[in-house]
Formats: sequence, C-alpha cells, structure tokens
Amino acid sequence: MGEFELIERYFAAVGVTRRDVTLGVGDDAAILSVPAGQEVIACTDTLVAGSHFPLDFDAADIGWRSLAVNLSDLAAMGADPAWATLALTLPKLDEDWLEAFVEGFSAVALPHGVALVGGDTTRGPLTLTVQAMGFVPAGTAVRRRGATAGDLLYVTGWPGDAAAGLALLQGRLAGAGADRAALELKFRRPEPRVGFGLRLRGVASACIDVSDGLAADLGRLVAASGVGAVVRAAELPLSRALYTLAGEARAREFALGGGDDYELLFSVPQAARGALARAIASAGAPACHCIGEIVSGRGVRVVGEKGDLPLQKGWDHFAT
Amino acid sequence: MGEFELIERYFAAVGVTRRDVTLGVGDDAAILSVPAGQEVIACTDTLVAGSHFPLDFDAADIGWRSLAVNLSDLAAMGADPAWATLALTLPKLDEDWLEAFVEGFSAVALPHGVALVGGDTTRGPLTLTVQAMGFVPAGTAVRRRGATAGDLLYVTGWPGDAAAGLALLQGRLAGAGADRAALELKFRRPEPRVGFGLRLRGVASACIDVSDGLAADLGRLVAASGVGAVVRAAELPLSRALYTLAGEARAREFALGGGDDYELLFSVPQAARGALARAIASAGAPACHCIGEIVSGRGVRVVGEKGDLPLQKGWDHFAT
Repeated sequence: MGEFELIERYFAAVGVTRRDVTLGVGDDAAILSVPAGQEVIACTDTLVAGSHFPLDFDAADIGWRSLAVNLSDLAAMGADPAWATLALTLPKLDEDWLEAFVEGFSAVALPHGVALVGGDTTRGPLTLTVQAMGFVPAGTAVRRRGATAGDLLYVTGWPGDAAAGLALLQGRLAGAGADRAALELKFRRPEPRVGFGLRLRGVASACIDVSDGLAADLGRLVAASGVGAVVRAAELPLSRALYTLAGEARAREFALGGGDDYELLFSVPQAARGALARAIASAGAPACHCIGEIVSGRGVRVVGEKGDLPLQKGWDHFAT
Repeated sequence: MGEFELIERYFAAVGVTRRDVTLGVGDDAAILSVPAGQEVIACTDTLVAGSHFPLDFDAADIGWRSLAVNLSDLAAMGADPAWATLALTLPKLDEDWLEAFVEGFSAVALPHGVALVGGDTTRGPLTLTVQAMGFVPAGTAVRRRGATAGDLLYVTGWPGDAAAGLALLQGRLAGAGADRAALELKFRRPEPRVGFGLRLRGVASACIDVSDGLAADLGRLVAASGVGAVVRAAELPLSRALYTLAGEARAREFALGGGDDYELLFSVPQAARGALARAIASAGAPACHCIGEIVSGRGVRVVGEKGDLPLQKGWDHFAT
C-alpha cells in the first residue's frame, strides 16, 4: 500500500462532517468557509517521540495527545474548534498502529466537533504536527496580554497530576493502585478545557494553557501583560492521588514545575467574579481554584508559610 | 537562550505585515480575519532531512523549500497566499542555521505576501512542517476533479529539471558548468507558480502541482476526475540543460518520473483555449506547454514514436 492510499484510507473520514468544509482530505489543499463575523484562531504543536511522549507510548494515546494539546491552545483563546490538519512522520507503515492512532485522535475530534481537513504523511523519525483552527466572534479572543494588578488568578483542574503520571511511567516516582492509574491517565489522556474556555470570553482578562509548568507559563502570561503575579503555595490545588504518592513538598514541585497539564491559567478582574462563578457553576465545568493574584511589577512569586518558594524552570526543549 | 526567546527573536517578524492578522506569533494561537466572500484554502507539507532534501542541504534552501512547496499547493488551487505556520524540529539550537533558514523562508514569503502567524519549535531529528493558508473568492477554487474527455493537458515550466538537479547533487548524473548550475538551482529553489495559478481560476477544469513526478501526479488528477489521459512524449518540454546533460531518453524519464518540479499540471476545456492564451501572455507567466489531452477511460498513457512508454512509479515515501 502506498502513501496516498494510506492517506485516503485512514484520514479521509476522521472527525466530524462539517458543512463549512467544502473540500477536505484528498486534494492539494482543503477549501473551508468561515462564518460571517467570526475570526479564525490557528495554532500548531509538534510532538516528537522520546521528547513529548515516551518511545513506547500507546498509538491511541499519541493520537489523543496530538489533537488534545492543540485544542488546549484554542481553549486558552476562548475559541470553538472546527478544523485540524495532521502532518505525520512515521518510521514505517504499520496499519495496526495507524488504526489505534486514528481511534485516539477521533476520541478527541468527535466530542469537540473537529473535522480533519488535510495532512501529509512522510517517512522518518516518529514526529507529529497538528494545526488546529477554530472560531471566535470577532474581537472576543482571550489573549495572554490583558491581566492588570488586582486581578485574581485561577487555574483549572489539578496541576502536577500529569507530570507525576509521567514520573510514574518513567520510574521516577513510585506508586500503585487507583492513585497511580489516575495520575497516569492524566498524562496519557489530557482533557482540553474547550467548553470552559468558551465561557471565559468576556470574563478572563488574560489566559494561557499550562503545558510547560504552571510557574513558567504564568511567567509568560505576566510578561505579556506587563505585570507580576503572586501565587499562594497553600492555595495550589493538589489532587488526593498526587498528595498521597508524592507527599506535599514534591506534589507542589510537580504542580509548579511539572508540565503537560493542559489546564487553563487565567486572570479575572474583581468585577467579573460573579460572571466567573456562573461559568464555574455551569454544567461540565472543571474544578477551578483561585491561587493568587496579579500585582504590579514583574515576575512570579510563590509565597509559602516560610517565605518565597524557589521556582524551577519550566520544560524548555532547548534550555541548556 | 531558551526555546521561547528563540521563537520570539527569529519568527515574530517573518514575512509581511498583514492587516488581516490581528495577532501573530507569540500567544497560544493566532487571530486571523478572512475577507467577506472568500474561502480559506489550507494545506500542509512536511520535509524530513535526508528524505525530502539532502542531509547537507543549505539552511537557506531548506527555508525556501519549506514554504515554496506549500505555496505550490495553494497555487494548484488558484489561491492567493496569506498566512503560514511553521513547526520546526531541530537537533540543536544553531543561531547561524536559524538566520539562514529565516532568510530563505522570507525570500519566498515576502514576494508572495505571506505572514508567518504561528509555530512551534521542538528538539529532535530535523523535520519541518509548514501549513499555508490563502483565499479564493467563494466557489472559484480549482480542484483535481473536473477534467473531462477532450480537455487539453498542460504543464508549466520544464519538468524533470529539479529531479536532474538532485541527481547531480547526489552524483547519479554527471555534468558541470552553467547547465549543472541551472538544474541544481531548480532543485534548490523551486518557484511556486502562485501568480499563474490565480490566472487559472475559471480557465482550468482541474489542476494539481507536480511534486511526485508528472506521470504519478497526472494519475491522481485523472483518477479524481474519473477520466484518462494521453501524453505525447514528443511534446514533453525538455530544457536545453536537461537534454544536454541527460540525453533525450533519460531526460524524458526525469520529466515523467522525477519529482520536486512544483510545476502546475492542468486541464483546459477546448472552449477556454483563448482564455488560457491570454493567461499565458500576461506578464510574469511561466513557460507553458500542451503535452496531451484528457480522454475517456482510466489511467495515463504516454505515447512515443514506437508506441507507449513504460511508466515509472512516482516518489512514494512508503512504497516498498
């Protein structure tokens, strides 16, 4: 079977069917329609085997992750996902692998209404690049820039769980049973906060998705906004599983410095607290905790009982 | 220097500044506006070092190629390029390499009015994925499907030159002087036929860009259209340089079975010949030759003086 039959067979009908896709996989390019009054939000993320996931990672988990991390970027902008393209570099053609990959990809695409509209398959070291595109009503996208002193700082979910899950998979953390399974699942199957991201339009003053560690990504948000932030260590949400397996001190390290959370970290003006409470109370909203506030100045401080905690650097593929 | 400073420094101002880019590189995603009445044309292509270009290929040539091959896909649809995202996987951070890469990328982006609006840099084996996006007035995109029996078949430029250029670089073909330089340049710096593609709207009944070899890509066009094609070997345009270095028989093999041409292969109804002549006569149009016609039936025949020529398979990354 050749490359082109491969594309046709596996990718022609991945995801949902959308009326705004005039032409999808199979031509030189896709033909797409944007609804009137909407802006296009576009992002791209690459996953390299052995760097972004373990070399023995399950194909279905790779498929899931490749789309989920991109939808997380769209969620951070408050965008409604629509289309994705997939560039897949494979060391060899393995139909079982491809079927599992598509299953995992589809498990994210279908509930979020995403159509796969194009792609490219090439031979080489296992690498995946997805571009995701979505819509926002013009002028309503939530950016990293926009936080001002006095805004409250929130994070969804339980940061650190995914990093602890990877540590378990890699033998850097010990544990068993339901706690281990829960943390590993958070690494293997991150849930992009798409629905909640939509509700943050007009509520959050700035937002970023946490992919490289809470402290590092918060550093980016405050740098873009020209402000600083204070995080109260005691307010960091730590899941029971993380606390149990890692202990409090190490759990906080995972929560602040670990990566792969794909949670939303956002600032909310005091005046919008009521609107946020309604967003949090809506069906399907994830857990959401206030962890500190935006302050004037620069940089990120994490304040514990005995003073400021030292900050680890976030995951950086080229840091030396 | 970390990954993020790298992105900011090199990629924040690549390409042109466009008013339809509300937010470009530097946030979780880009914010883009599509003009009223236009459809979005989106494509993606991956280049793997050692597969799509030689391992010692010049960084500026890699930058050029990564965007040019995507603009070639847009050209084949008749689209006007607008935006690109770049996913760059690098074995190490090398500022000289990056500067040269951006120089080559920009040399294609600037004349074609493309803004780089997002990207991702990761560490791993050298791999590049570009997604390009452009516009067509709604309903005017040229597809692979649409050729009907009796249409004339055309190709731009001098197919086979680029494949011969690669053969020269790899020592599979001998030659020197200006002929060698001309063929190598066709491989190193393919010129996407963007301007001519725009003129094919309403003229061509079907179009594809030749990336995997003329015969293979023609096979795709006729398969998509549900027709067949006859190519007259004597009408295949062979450049003087190719003819001189490879001889007639091998030159035809390069022209039919070589890849990396990034020329446009398209069908034109007899009734549109006048419109095509005007397109060809317009300023900046590339050389364009009629090489055969669309017929009823299936598949591709290449007719020579002594009967049909055997067809090689086009480049296929997973063919065995």
